[in-house]
Amino acid sequence: MSHKQILALSGGVGGAKLALGLARVLPAEQLTVVCNTGDDFEHLGLKICPDLDTVMYTLAGRSHPEQGWGLANESWQVMDTLRELQGETWFNLGDRDLATHLLRSQLLRQGLSLSAVTQHLCHALGIAQKILPMSDDTVSTSVLTENGVLAFQHYFVRERCAPAVRGFVFRGIEHARPHPEMLRLLGSDELMAVVICPSNPFLSIDPILALPGLREALRASPAPVIAVSPIVAGNAIKGPTAKILRELNLPCSPMTIAEHYRDIVDGVVLDQLDETHAPAIFDLGIAATVTNTVMRSLDDREQLAHSVLSLASTLAGKK
Amino acid sequence: MSHKQILALSGGVGGAKLALGLARVLPAEQLTVVCNTGDDFEHLGLKICPDLDTVMYTLAGRSHPEQGWGLANESWQVMDTLRELQGETWFNLGDRDLATHLLRSQLLRQGLSLSAVTQHLCHALGIAQKILPMSDDTVSTSVLTENGVLAFQHYFVRERCAPAVRGFVFRGIEHARPHPEMLRLLGSDELMAVVICPSNPFLSIDPILALPGLREALRASPAPVIAVSPIVAGNAIKGPTAKILRELNLPCSPMTIAEHYRDIVDGVVLDQLDETHAPAIFDLGIAATVTNTVMRSLDDREQLAHSVLSLASTLAGKK
Repeated sequence: MSHKQILALSGGVGGAKLALGLARVLPAEQLTVVCNTGDDFEHLGLKICPDLDTVMYTLAGRSHPEQGWGLANESWQVMDTLRELQGETWFNLGDRDLATHLLRSQLLRQGLSLSAVTQHLCHALGIAQKILPMSDDTVSTSVLTENGVLAFQHYFVRERCAPAVRGFVFRGIEHARPHPEMLRLLGSDELMAVVICPSNPFLSIDPILALPGLREALRASPAPVIAVSPIVAGNAIKGPTAKILRELNLPCSPMTIAEHYRDIVDGVVLDQLDETHAPAIFDLGIAATVTNTVMRSLDDREQLAHSVLSLASTLAGKK
Repeated sequence: MSHKQILALSGGVGGAKLALGLARVLPAEQLTVVCNTGDDFEHLGLKICPDLDTVMYTLAGRSHPEQGWGLANESWQVMDTLRELQGETWFNLGDRDLATHLLRSQLLRQGLSLSAVTQHLCHALGIAQKILPMSDDTVSTSVLTENGVLAFQHYFVRERCAPAVRGFVFRGIEHARPHPEMLRLLGSDELMAVVICPSNPFLSIDPILALPGLREALRASPAPVIAVSPIVAGNAIKGPTAKILRELNLPCSPMTIAEHYRDIVDGVVLDQLDETHAPAIFDLGIAATVTNTVMRSLDDREQLAHSVLSLASTLAGKK
């Protein structure tokens, strides 16, 4: 079992796709996915954890095939009725999805930790891999925009990422304890590699990295850290990453990703369309693998997982 | 407008049927329905008000035509998924119904009173009549059974009324203030009659009557109080009323209803099948009208409403 464990750090959609690729090529007991919880929020009295849910639903084979969030075969009776009743409907919650939020909220009120609730949900959904929240303590991402500070979901869903971004705040981060199982793995001989999934670096990965002691633990870990670039050919596959990079005056290229993770990363996987950026990444002292990173099919997800694991083997012991 | 207002006191199904009858034969601004809230409870973190909802859905023309609770054309995606997730499913909540509970719970948490929330819901549902909770303060009915004390919904839904009943407790009743609009009407010249709907006397009407000062206000009111018997031919149309009467060693007859309400009631409407009980009711000094009280059709509801209003006119000024 030594050097076999993979620890993936993930946000929502893009991260979940690679997590599924890894889940399909690794024995279930060798994969742990840690999810960003900075996007979590309370809505209609329910605790909603978008990234945990996207990863759970994806690994359970229940995610919506196109929209990138929520469940397949979803219905919208509750929302439709809430609209008739003149309730708040800016955040769309499907009927089946609501069962998750109702149960999670109830179990949290009963005193269970978010980890324990996630474990229950994963068990009920038949997920054999380990899915962990980055912390059992509450962290809330806010976005500093040209229009002032916005809670993450207000920026992301209600304002559709329209206001220009100036920076980010992870409220509660200074007292949030990284999930102990993540810290244990990072210090363990069992760990083969840490994979930073192709999620938004500012909104999905940075909250995880900002947990007290986590960057230090990543640097101290004997396992290599590999980031998969969410930028392909000057754009992001999904979400506001490219728009945010422009607003922060950063080039929209895998080089920016490499520099962003420079202090913790040993290797970067970038898309074949970005091959010309590989030498500059090498110059930072970071290994690079060039492959197709656009995950349209299940095969794409598996192939990218193989590329990541192959870079991990190459880097094993070289850190 | 003098002597035109009707104040109906109601539980769930049976009460809602007569409330609908009254709503169909009276101008909307002349009907106020006060609902029992002793059955209200928290479930899955949501505030659920079964009697208010049944009356609202019924007056909105949205109630389920047969089952006596919930909405017509309901779907069950949330419950089905909650079952898969191994959540609590002993209390059935339809998808459309859940929108009511989510919105109500959110508005209550925001500090609105149950009255204000009910007003919002009635407005959104297009209900022109006034529907009021008996109180904005929390009252919780418990049932003393042979198996100990059970919270109302545990007795009613989870245990399906199986344990034999010894008595009832309305927790919080001593500090619950009757809805001020109900008190205002009772003291007003505008009031034509109070109608005690054919609901369970112990579980649906007694919590209203037990509100501090309410019996006194009913007795002091110049308007007659008329009760419609929920007992027909030795049985109850719906629910556990007959079973409870047996368990309390009380005859299952309209006479028991008349005696139960003796201190406040001026007239009783009883079913034509119970005509033989009318003389004994007269002997109590209570007026009685014999008619069909079984409300199968809309016509039945309207006809019973007319009978009640007719008895009210007869008794007007004679109190």
